[in-house]
This record gives sequence, C-alpha cells and structure tokens, in this order.
Amino acid sequence: MKTDIEIARAAPKKPIGEIGEALGIPAEALLPYGHDKAKVGQAFIDGLAGRPDGKLILVTAVNPTPAGEGKTTTTVGLGDGLNAIGRRAVVCIREASLGPNFGMKGGAAGGGHAQVVPMEDMNLHFTGDFHAITSAHSLLSAMIDNHVHWGNEEGIDVRRVQWRRVVDMNDRALRQVTVGLGGVANGFPREGGFDITVASEVMACLCLARDLKDLERRLGDMIVAYRRDRSPVFCRDIKADGAMTVLLKDAMQPNLVQTLENNPAFVHGGPFANIAHGCNSVIATRTALKLADYVVTEAGFGADLGAEKFMNIKCRLAGLAPSAVVLVATVRAMKMNGGVAKADLGAKDVEAVRRGCANLGRHIENVKGFGVPVVVAINHFSGDADAEVEAVRAFAETQGTEAIVSRHWAEGGRGAEALARRVAAIADADVANFAPLYPDDMPLFEKVETVAKRIYRADEVLADKKVRDQLRLWEEQGYGHLPVCMAKTQYSFSTDPNLRGAPTNHSVPVREVRLSAGAGFVVVVCGEIMTMPGLPRVPSAESIRLNDAGEVEGLF
Amino acid sequence: MKTDIEIARAAPKKPIGEIGEALGIPAEALLPYGHDKAKVGQAFIDGLAGRPDGKLILVTAVNPTPAGEGKTTTTVGLGDGLNAIGRRAVVCIREASLGPNFGMKGGAAGGGHAQVVPMEDMNLHFTGDFHAITSAHSLLSAMIDNHVHWGNEEGIDVRRVQWRRVVDMNDRALRQVTVGLGGVANGFPREGGFDITVASEVMACLCLARDLKDLERRLGDMIVAYRRDRSPVFCRDIKADGAMTVLLKDAMQPNLVQTLENNPAFVHGGPFANIAHGCNSVIATRTALKLADYVVTEAGFGADLGAEKFMNIKCRLAGLAPSAVVLVATVRAMKMNGGVAKADLGAKDVEAVRRGCANLGRHIENVKGFGVPVVVAINHFSGDADAEVEAVRAFAETQGTEAIVSRHWAEGGRGAEALARRVAAIADADVANFAPLYPDDMPLFEKVETVAKRIYRADEVLADKKVRDQLRLWEEQGYGHLPVCMAKTQYSFSTDPNLRGAPTNHSVPVREVRLSAGAGFVVVVCGEIMTMPGLPRVPSAESIRLNDAGEVEGLF
Repeated sequence: MKTDIEIARAAPKKPIGEIGEALGIPAEALLPYGHDKAKVGQAFIDGLAGRPDGKLILVTAVNPTPAGEGKTTTTVGLGDGLNAIGRRAVVCIREASLGPNFGMKGGAAGGGHAQVVPMEDMNLHFTGDFHAITSAHSLLSAMIDNHVHWGNEEGIDVRRVQWRRVVDMNDRALRQVTVGLGGVANGFPREGGFDITVASEVMACLCLARDLKDLERRLGDMIVAYRRDRSPVFCRDIKADGAMTVLLKDAMQPNLVQTLENNPAFVHGGPFANIAHGCNSVIATRTALKLADYVVTEAGFGADLGAEKFMNIKCRLAGLAPSAVVLVATVRAMKMNGGVAKADLGAKDVEAVRRGCANLGRHIENVKGFGVPVVVAINHFSGDADAEVEAVRAFAETQGTEAIVSRHWAEGGRGAEALARRVAAIADADVANFAPLYPDDMPLFEKVETVAKRIYRADEVLADKKVRDQLRLWEEQGYGHLPVCMAKTQYSFSTDPNLRGAPTNHSVPVREVRLSAGAGFVVVVCGEIMTMPGLPRVPSAESIRLNDAGEVEGLF
Repeated sequence: MKTDIEIARAAPKKPIGEIGEALGIPAEALLPYGHDKAKVGQAFIDGLAGRPDGKLILVTAVNPTPAGEGKTTTTVGLGDGLNAIGRRAVVCIREASLGPNFGMKGGAAGGGHAQVVPMEDMNLHFTGDFHAITSAHSLLSAMIDNHVHWGNEEGIDVRRVQWRRVVDMNDRALRQVTVGLGGVANGFPREGGFDITVASEVMACLCLARDLKDLERRLGDMIVAYRRDRSPVFCRDIKADGAMTVLLKDAMQPNLVQTLENNPAFVHGGPFANIAHGCNSVIATRTALKLADYVVTEAGFGADLGAEKFMNIKCRLAGLAPSAVVLVATVRAMKMNGGVAKADLGAKDVEAVRRGCANLGRHIENVKGFGVPVVVAINHFSGDADAEVEAVRAFAETQGTEAIVSRHWAEGGRGAEALARRVAAIADADVANFAPLYPDDMPLFEKVETVAKRIYRADEVLADKKVRDQLRLWEEQGYGHLPVCMAKTQYSFSTDPNLRGAPTNHSVPVREVRLSAGAGFVVVVCGEIMTMPGLPRVPSAESIRLNDAGEVEGLF
C-alpha cells in the first residue's frame, strides 16, 4: 500500500494559474509562490464584495482517538466529492505549524487519496505566513522592552507584562526565561517566556480580521501589559500596530493550492484550537464563499470544542452562517468512546461501538442546537467490520440523522459522492436557521455556564473569586460583549480526558481566564494548556534529510 | 527631487519570467514569488556546470562616512552601464536583514536611478530566505537543550554551549538571557543569548556552500558546544544537520530580481560583514558567472575589510578569481579621511580632499597586491565641486590608476557607461593574476599578522597567551588551514575608528578568536562587535504603516 507522501508525489498537479482560472481568478490577481501555490491578491478580493455567497459547510467530529478521526481527510474528500458530482466547491483548511513537525512525524494535509498538495511545502515554510506572524509578534516584543529601556513613558509595570515572545519551534528551554540580563544597555531584567507561533494573539487577529484595516485595529487593541494602577497598555500605545500590519500585508492574503484531484483549496491561518478558536482565516472563508457554490471547512478538535468555537466565535464575529454540518465518526472512535483501550481498537466489537455512539448522539444534538442540519460521515477505515459500520449508521437513524459511509481515503472524491450528494441537498434546501448559543450581551460567566451546561452537559462551573472578579472587571472595562474561547481537553465532553462517551454529573473547573482583546474573545482555561510544546527524546528531526534524489525523507 | 522609493515605484517592472528568459533561464526553472521575484531551480543550476564562466568584477570602497559611499548603488549602476553598452551583465548583491529596518529608516537596494526592485519586498520578507535560516538555526538551538534534557548522551558541558539562539529582530533584551527555568519539564537552566539572524553561522554556511550536499556537510561541521574534556560537540552529533538542510533547501536557491532598467540581479544571502565574510552567496555568484559575460558584485564595508575577505575567504573557498576591482570613492569620504568633521562635509574643501586621498591610495595599492587590476569609480554626488572631483581623479592618476566619474545615481546606466567601458576593457584584457594574500598552510596567527601588516599597515598584532594558545589548539585539531575573518571597525585601516586617512605606527589588538568550523574560517575580533543590535529611542517602526493606497510608509 502506498503511503500518503507517495500518493501525494505521484499525483499530477496542475499549474496553480489553471486552478485559479477555474475559480475565476485572473492570472494578475494571483501571486504565485512556485508553480503550485499562490496568494490571492487583496485588490481582487476587495472587488468581490457585491457577489452572493455560496453555502458554508462545516466538517467537525466526535471526540477523537489520539490518532484523530480524519476531519481534514473528510473535508478534502467531501470537497472532491462535490466537484465529482458537478458542483463548484472549494475546501478551506488551516496551515500547519512548522515546529511540531520536527518533534513527531508530521503533519499531512489530509490522507490517502484525499489530500491537499504540495504536502512538503505545506509542512515546511509554505508561503511564509507563519514566519510573518513570528516577525510581527517579535517586533512588538522588542518594542515593549525597548520602550521600558528608554524611559517607559507609558508606565509599564514590568512585573505585569502580559506579552510573551514566540518562536515557531518546539523549544522547551524557552518556556520560562529571564531577559534583559547583562547590564544597562540590555534593558531591565524581567521574567518572560516564549510560546509557539500558532499560540500568538497575532495569529488569532489575522485569522479573524476582515481586511488589513480591521487587522490593524485588532493588533492595536491587543493588551501587552498593565500599569501599576492595573490599567491596560495596548499595542497601540507602543506604536507597533502599523509596522506589524506592514509585516503581515502579504500573510493576510489567502493561499490557493489544490487537492490531489486538482480541485481548489484555500489553506490559510492556523490559530491554536485551545487558547484560540482553531479555524482557518475569515478572509479565506469569505473569499471562497464568493468564488464557489459550496465551501467545505473544518474546525479543530471534536465538535464540543471546534464546532462550538466555529459557531460562537468565528461565525459570530465574521457574520457567517453555515448551511450544514458534517459530523465525522469512525468505528474506532466509537469503540474508544465505548470503553475499549487504545491497544484493542483493532478488534471487532459491535457492542462497544453501540455504547460509544452515545458520544455521537450528544454531538448531533448539540449541533442541531445551533439551528444547523447535520449529517454523519462515517469515515471508513479498511479494518472496519460491516456490522460495526452498520451499528453507527443505525444509531444515527434513531437520532433522526442520516449517516453515510464515505470512502474518500481509499477512493478519493468518487468515494465521497454519496456524502456529497446528501450534503448538497441539505445545503440547497436552505433549512438552516443558524444562531450562536448565547447573545453578545450575556455576562461573561453566564456564557461559560451556557457552553458548559448546554454543550458539555456539566452540572456546574467551578471558579474561584479571583476568576469571577476578573470577568466582572473586564465587563466594566467594556469587554463584556466578547464571546468566550474554551480551552479544555479534546478527548471528552468533560474536563477529564478519561471520561469517554456522553458523561453527565460532572463539573467544569475554570483555572484561569485570559483576555485576547485584539482577537476579540476571553479565553477560559479548564485544565492544563501547553503553549510551547517540547521535543521528544528522539525528535523526528534526527531522521529528516534530503535523499540523493533531493526528496525530503523522514518528515512524513 | 524624487525619493528613492518614489523612483522605485514609478519604474515599470518586467515580469520576472522575461528577465529570466533574457538570461536563458526557461520558465520551468524559475520558481516565482509573486510576479517580480523568482528563485532559480537547483536542477537548472546543476545543468550549468560545463559552461564557461563570465568575468567577475568586485565593487569595493574606501573607508566610508557613516552614510556609506554608494557601493551598492555603484554595483547596480555598473551592471546597468554594462548592459547599456551592449554587454550581458548580472548584478549580485546581498539580501537585507529585516530587524534593523524597524530601528533606523531602512535599507534600500541601491539608490536614485541605480536600484534593484521590488524595494519593499527586499526590505521585508523577500523570498523568506532569512526566515528559513532563522528556522534552521532555531531547530538546532532547541535540539541542543532537548538533548541535554533527555539525558545528554553526548556529554555536553552546559557551561560551554557555544551555540547562541537567533531572531531576525533588533531585540536588546535578548542579548543575555537565562533559559530552561521553571522546573524539570523545561530542562536545565543555563545562561544564553540571542544574536540577529545575519550573525548566524548557518547564514555563513549557506553563503559559502556550493550546493546542498556541501551545505549539509558544513552544517554538520559546526561546533555547538564542548564537553568537560574540551572536545567539541558538532551539530552532526546532535543529528540536526539533515533537518536543517531540508529547512534550507529553498533558501539555497538564488533569488532573481531586476534593476530599474530591467536588467537581471541576483540578491542572495547576507552574512554579517564583521563576524562573517559579508558577501552574497557563492551559489548566486557562480550561477551568475555561468549565465552572463560580466558579473558585478560587492563586499561589505571598505576594501580593508570587504575586499580582503572577498579575496581571502570567498574567492579562496569557492575557487573564484576576480578580473577587475572597482574602488568606489566619494568626495565626501575623501574629505572625512582628510580630517573634516561629519557636520562640515557639505562645504567645498579641495585641500581636505587631497589629504584624504591617502586613504584611496592605500586601498589601490592593497587591491593590486591581490594581483587584480583596479579602477576608481568616483560616485558623483550633486553637491560635489568640480575641483574636488578633479582632485580625486588626479590623485588616482599619480597611482597609475584611472578614476572615472560615474553618475548612475542621477542618470542610471547611461551615467555609468564610461565606467562600464573601462571595466569591460580591463576585464576583457585578462590581465588579472589573482592570488589570496596568504597560503592555506600558514599558521593562523601569521595569517592575522599578514592581514594586519599588509592591509592595515600595522606594526604589530597584540594578542595575549590565551588567544595564541587557542589558535594553536585549533591548528592541532585540524583547523589550521582555515582563512581568518577579521572583525574590526570599518571606519579606519586601524582598529581606532577615529584614525582616518592612511594611518601608520598602529597596533592591532586581538580581543578574542572564534572558530566557525562549518562556515570555514576563524573569526578574529579586534574591538567591540555587536551581534544583536538594539532599537533606538524612537524606532522607525513607530511611523511605519500602510497608507490608504495600501503602500508602505515610513520604511524608507
């Protein structure tokens, strides 16, 4: 059997100009990066404003196994399937982070016969967007300490600098550092630390901004520190917002690539799915909606996190409304949710699948709660027993929801045609009546409770006085209208990764809250979150190299 | 009068494919980055091996004023001038560092009517080469501390880690830091620091490597730390060399852009001119030599540093031999070397010009010492008095060297035609008999003395026992054949920036020596060198922004 990278390398790519042309993008509006990648020019995007929008389809998933359930693969497969049945569809997914690829084996864009190419580039520098974000973030970092060094006119309390530095690499030694050592010329010593670039608020701002003006405003709104009187110091006060926008002007333009079947895909932006909202950029999604009849996109983690944030953050802030949701389920994930240990997932166990379907059922109910019709895609794995697959299908039917087996991994778009037909029919029927889960003017803590009770089915939210006071203070400062961005484990509806299935009688403890005033949400941390990963004992980097044919080995 | 950026924006650019085609590069061998930048594919470069080389012309300069003497401008002007008189010429210059542009107003590529475009891109992310270098460097940084964290099998003495981290930003607070704080999961605390990316040895390796195999070998040869027994730990021991090469595979391909007159220019690589050799990449120069009859290139700082390193490091290591040297002189620089204060350089002072010509005379003599014919280019400034210009010309004549006034800044290639004719005639005459100043097998300290006495005209080199012992140790370890890379002030032949003209009776104190075992030279530090600049009190970043037309303001 061929590996993903072998399939990807064997696929004949079309020149990116032809992919753009098929979408109606003229050659001069495409900024090529090599022959198989291009950015779509801002002026062309501006000119699309008057056009009607296509249908937006979200691909999300049940609570996953550690290997993932193939959300991206299904997103790509559905896109190809829609094109295969003669519909004009574009796929919108996130860009990959560079650093983690050097820790564990990387990061493909889909898998099997449902992939986006060029895969090597997408797992390395791609079009440089993340480097631009790192640069913009680093400029602000330097300007903050430089401001303090030269007199600190804004009165920054150096003990309360919120802005951490970033690097796009898994570098555990940088998690906590002391900077400014070495004497007068190097500034004032203080504690600080580095996150990985995808965790930068600059990333979240870029992904939620409508255009460069909106981006500049969001960057300016970011809080970088507090004064002794606890009043916030904004990025705008440090006067970094203009130059950061200049550094991001190319990165703000969506990247066009293609699927293995030469259908268009936008790959743009990649905010962390925990301390940020985990969706591709608003500008890519909005541009795609102007160019295609169907836009298939995905959100990070399971539907309890990804779909919830997609609806309550991205759609709310960008004025988007999905027409349908595809909920990806696998036999393996149902077994795991049914209590089977990871090592035993390969063995046939129909009863476990049936037990695990409780997880699927709750996700179906949750998604319907947003007013959007849902269809279940059973992402078919070669080891799945027919009876197991049938158990999932039959369960979905009991929930009033169709479940369709999709074989895009093995067969590409052709294998997803049945799914594509059903999704197109639902979207065309215009039955969605989307609404976010809570209104803007609900108090922040009530927003947290709403998500915890209605999505996680928790009994209560536990938060100490400090957290509650902080939320109230932000409300007083004018941030009460923001949505909340939940950070919790992806493996359970609850905050305990071992509580599989559809747990009840649990509580959601809030450890900490953080304000992303530029991106426009309040991060609610329920558990440990890691904003700077480390490398393992034997990093995959040790075996990554160019072979004699000039091909990358060991990255995939 | 138009500013540089106004001139650059008004110039009609040709599609980069046309520029490549005129050089004989087929469309499929060009990897476009937008419509006005492209990388030249490695396979095409490999296929050039059998072709004859064009003539290599180095542009260097007298000891400069702080504003610079227009070396890049003259390089570009001469390239345009050669094309204007019907010769096939390519310009090869360095890429700009991102960080410093946010401190002081940036970094153009040439000036007036002798510029390379697109200027904005070249001063921002360009084709991402420096970001790739930062990534490769950062991967090794992370892997070193990670190696120690997981058991330190190589036995790194954490007190003797030589490898500093880098970022492409002027961030004074990162010059000296403590990393690895915060507990067990974050590794072992140790002191460290960050340099700016152009100071990375990875940059020097990339700029001196012939191809990707050679690059991988050089990266592997870099010394990252020492063990308790003082034996070196190489990058290869940490197993980072393969993955770093993968990260650099695109960056290794030269970038093609164009001059304002639509002539080809390679802009590739940018090693620091103090702790590294300060020339564009060997691969760009060698590729250009295969494609053009004349390749005009430059080296950083004055000829005492730039030309010396170009000859003794780049040409030696790459097997290049220049056919002619253009020594750029300006009336202003002669006045400054004649003792006029910076504030008074605008006033006519023929006598001061005459006095300052001693500086020019010594550079002429030095360059001739390499066996290469030299012509003086008087880079004309609008305020220069005719008598001042004539004084320089007449002086050069007394040295047996022609001095030609060049008006490329005001007139473009047409203004450099006289210079171009003379340079072409010299190069065509094949009179050069290039040899480096010292043989490979000379002991390291004697190499330092050779440069100090023959180029700087110092009486002696002062170095304490520690420095001399270190050099001897490296000789024992097999590094004795390396050239030396001098780091000293650019403003004087001596190590005292205030000693203008042609000082004698001075000494060269060596503060420190460093081994760049991958790049392949021993850095000899004679004075303060700054490997991480800081931002000024009011960084130019504060006024950089996009205006309503979407143009970058404040960067230039």
